[in-house]
Amino acid sequence: MEPDVDNVTIRAANQRFYDAHENRDLAAMEAIWEHSERIVCIHPGWPILRGWRDVMASWQRILAGPARNQFILTNLEVGVDGDLGWVTLDENLMDGPATSTVAATNLFIRDGTEWRMIHHHGSPVMR
Amino acid sequence: MEPDVDNVTIRAANQRFYDAHENRDLAAMEAIWEHSERIVCIHPGWPILRGWRDVMASWQRILAGPARNQFILTNLEVGVDGDLGWVTLDENLMDGPATSTVAATNLFIRDGTEWRMIHHHGSPVMR
Repeated sequence: MEPDVDNVTIRAANQRFYDAHENRDLAAMEAIWEHSERIVCIHPGWPILRGWRDVMASWQRILAGPARNQFILTNLEVGVDGDLGWVTLDENLMDGPATSTVAATNLFIRDGTEWRMIHHHGSPVMR
Repeated sequence: MEPDVDNVTIRAANQRFYDAHENRDLAAMEAIWEHSERIVCIHPGWPILRGWRDVMASWQRILAGPARNQFILTNLEVGVDGDLGWVTLDENLMDGPATSTVAATNLFIRDGTEWRMIHHHGSPVMR
């Protein structure tokens, strides 16, 4: 595959992650992640979560929670090397009149013609 | 190279990053990072910094600053795929009687027999 094709398909996988979050779609969220024990998720302010069970339990809780998260994604860059892709971006969260920004790192690993998320790290950007 | 050799050499590169920080050694910090425009650094609470100039300017400022950072690293896990290695860990910062924890993601890319840092993301863990 050409690197630019990888770039496009990684961006698409990254977008599906945010779509699943916005749509509170746990099945879609589960489909995006690698089903393994090596996955890692660090939500803003949270400790490190490792492995399928703990990571998915956190998404179940977040997607069932009260926050209505609408994301405007900006400042997005993609890196690729071999079967690993990394995405960095700003998640601009719109919640009523308030906005806040989370800086995010997302890692994806090639799985045939797809990319599976193996790592998500979000951190609040202080004003 | 065997994966376990990669694991050991990635851990060593990761340790050199924290040693450079503790020792306020900017030259060592520069040697650890890939000299490129694709490097990314997200300090706790900071916006995304991209590229050699901005990332190193931040380290120059931090290493010259007043904080005396002594790290106790815990909960460290290493992943490797091809020429990419990713490390997640807790940075337990000791500053006098106070302690705080930063959850960190570090990415390294193979450069011959060495690994160069291409990404660092730290986020405060809220109590």
